[in-house]
Amino acid sequence: MAEIVIHQNKLQPWVERIFIHYGFSEKHAKQAADVLVSADLRGIDSHGVARLSGYLRLIEKQRINPIPDMKILHETPSTASYDADAGIGLVSAPAAMEIAIEKAKNVGSGWVAIQNSNHFGIAAYHAMKALPHDMIGFAVTNASPLVTPALGAERMLGTNPICLAIPALHEPAFVLDMATSAASNGKLEIAERAEKNIPKGWLTQKDGSDSENPSELKNGGMLLTLGSDMDHGSYKGYGLSAVVDILSGVLSGANYGPWVPPFVSFLDPLDNLPGKGIGHFVGAWRIDGFRPAEEFKKHMDQWIQRFRAAKSIQSANPVQIPGDKERLSHAERAWQGIPLVEKVWDDLQNISAQTGIVLAQ
Amino acid sequence: MAEIVIHQNKLQPWVERIFIHYGFSEKHAKQAADVLVSADLRGIDSHGVARLSGYLRLIEKQRINPIPDMKILHETPSTASYDADAGIGLVSAPAAMEIAIEKAKNVGSGWVAIQNSNHFGIAAYHAMKALPHDMIGFAVTNASPLVTPALGAERMLGTNPICLAIPALHEPAFVLDMATSAASNGKLEIAERAEKNIPKGWLTQKDGSDSENPSELKNGGMLLTLGSDMDHGSYKGYGLSAVVDILSGVLSGANYGPWVPPFVSFLDPLDNLPGKGIGHFVGAWRIDGFRPAEEFKKHMDQWIQRFRAAKSIQSANPVQIPGDKERLSHAERAWQGIPLVEKVWDDLQNISAQTGIVLAQ
Repeated sequence: MAEIVIHQNKLQPWVERIFIHYGFSEKHAKQAADVLVSADLRGIDSHGVARLSGYLRLIEKQRINPIPDMKILHETPSTASYDADAGIGLVSAPAAMEIAIEKAKNVGSGWVAIQNSNHFGIAAYHAMKALPHDMIGFAVTNASPLVTPALGAERMLGTNPICLAIPALHEPAFVLDMATSAASNGKLEIAERAEKNIPKGWLTQKDGSDSENPSELKNGGMLLTLGSDMDHGSYKGYGLSAVVDILSGVLSGANYGPWVPPFVSFLDPLDNLPGKGIGHFVGAWRIDGFRPAEEFKKHMDQWIQRFRAAKSIQSANPVQIPGDKERLSHAERAWQGIPLVEKVWDDLQNISAQTGIVLAQ
Repeated sequence: MAEIVIHQNKLQPWVERIFIHYGFSEKHAKQAADVLVSADLRGIDSHGVARLSGYLRLIEKQRINPIPDMKILHETPSTASYDADAGIGLVSAPAAMEIAIEKAKNVGSGWVAIQNSNHFGIAAYHAMKALPHDMIGFAVTNASPLVTPALGAERMLGTNPICLAIPALHEPAFVLDMATSAASNGKLEIAERAEKNIPKGWLTQKDGSDSENPSELKNGGMLLTLGSDMDHGSYKGYGLSAVVDILSGVLSGANYGPWVPPFVSFLDPLDNLPGKGIGHFVGAWRIDGFRPAEEFKKHMDQWIQRFRAAKSIQSANPVQIPGDKERLSHAERAWQGIPLVEKVWDDLQNISAQTGIVLAQ
């Protein structure tokens, strides 16, 4: 498969200009481009510039507001609900995270539930904003329904990711960013491009029976929750996904469950929605609200070093720390450039042609 | 298998008297008995009175302090660390949860990390304390190492449960209480008693290879994390378990990872421990810190009703809400009594003989 490699220094300013062309303020365009390209750098290709044309179509359809007037709806010293005014989550989630961090500075922790938002990119970007402040960051979001609850055969939940970012001292931070489905959409896309079967336990057909064909998702199939089947704890993955949906959707006043609006412009939201847009939930704990940050971070170093040294099944394949893979990708791609598959490159060139804003390698 | 049925009204006061016999204050004995018997009522037999003799041996060995002087070590308006003074978690976790609830009343949320503690029973008991206050409750704990991280072949983590309790209006509360391993210890015990094989993906042998024999855990085998294998997301279960370990152990100043002291009295803790005892982490968000509680709870009713109505694979086996099973068990056992397997009944009769405190059916 042909791949085009482009450096972030070329890609990111271009993405910024595209968002400005579509009506974003300079500040919002800069923020959105930063979140988007950080996904490509971290190797989460499904959440990077591959999403750009989808976002632009939602702006054209007036489902994403390019000039949102975001505001706090209600607050206490450690909590708030936040109205994203139909803006994109790439912009509203970092803004909400800043509020959470400010609250944590003041009273030890801060939590913000965001309603009336849209796709927020990778959760890790938002949770990791807490790290330089010696805080533990938390970010979850609901998402358009593709996942069936355990025992079910209906799309009721999104891939509803959970992210926690935890600082260490000399070791790099611990960053867990995981979909609560057994496999993410991105993995299905990779299998589909490679025309490969997928393992049982990722996907069902439309009727709820097992499927090993990644294309079945487009035929009405459903992703399975982490655990895959009841014997292996699919009810746990369902429970975690449900918690993400409730914190993001029900607590914020956004939509939830099967009512979460689709991310794609060719599908319309359902009627009689119970809330507004999609929802996120972000927060931060100040470490020295519990013990001195330096002390904690020293113990995190020890935690990380001990887990890296754990006996592994294959010596060539050691135990990893959550976030290792993405950090290595970031280091490599920041240096060598971001590889884009031809389909994504063509997509960006189409945007380039339509806007007259040239993207050169 | 012979089973003895005993009513909570007989069992709980007896447990209380036993704890008093072992030096607990009346207040602490009452609290500990309430947590323990609530596990039996909810059908979590592995965490109920089956544990009592183990606790007593740890008291005899002076590893559980029956008269702890528990206190806050450090706090901010929404956070605290708490010293359980080597007491039992059955007592320290509810006390810490009360502090968290008080903080949530004052500033919207409250979070308490507990060090120097011991086994806290079922997480649901602690998280559910938030429900009558119209709060969302959170409780996690680390535990003695039985679980290998993904790619590993070493006991590095406990079954590290996660619990969230979320109130509804007319519907019963949503209560997720799950081990982050693919299967809990309790499930292995049931299979072992029934002399049945277990599914692949729960357990490994000592060398890290697959096992379907539940007794292999006693031969040095390891539990696998939720996801079971890399293809099905075992690194996600590992990540979640790690987060529980870090919040409970590293943030509180307790032990973590392979250093968490064993729950059984015949195994000694390791030398050069990095912290004190085992750790828990509990908290609460006040719902009206985000939106009016009544409004939230109405939407929770809608969430719950919609998920119950989701299309299921088998119509006789509908989609459940986390906590349904335990709530039904509670209703049944509060009425009909708690069934105890013969081994547990004998265990209790031994305690009865040793203490002279008679337990009658």
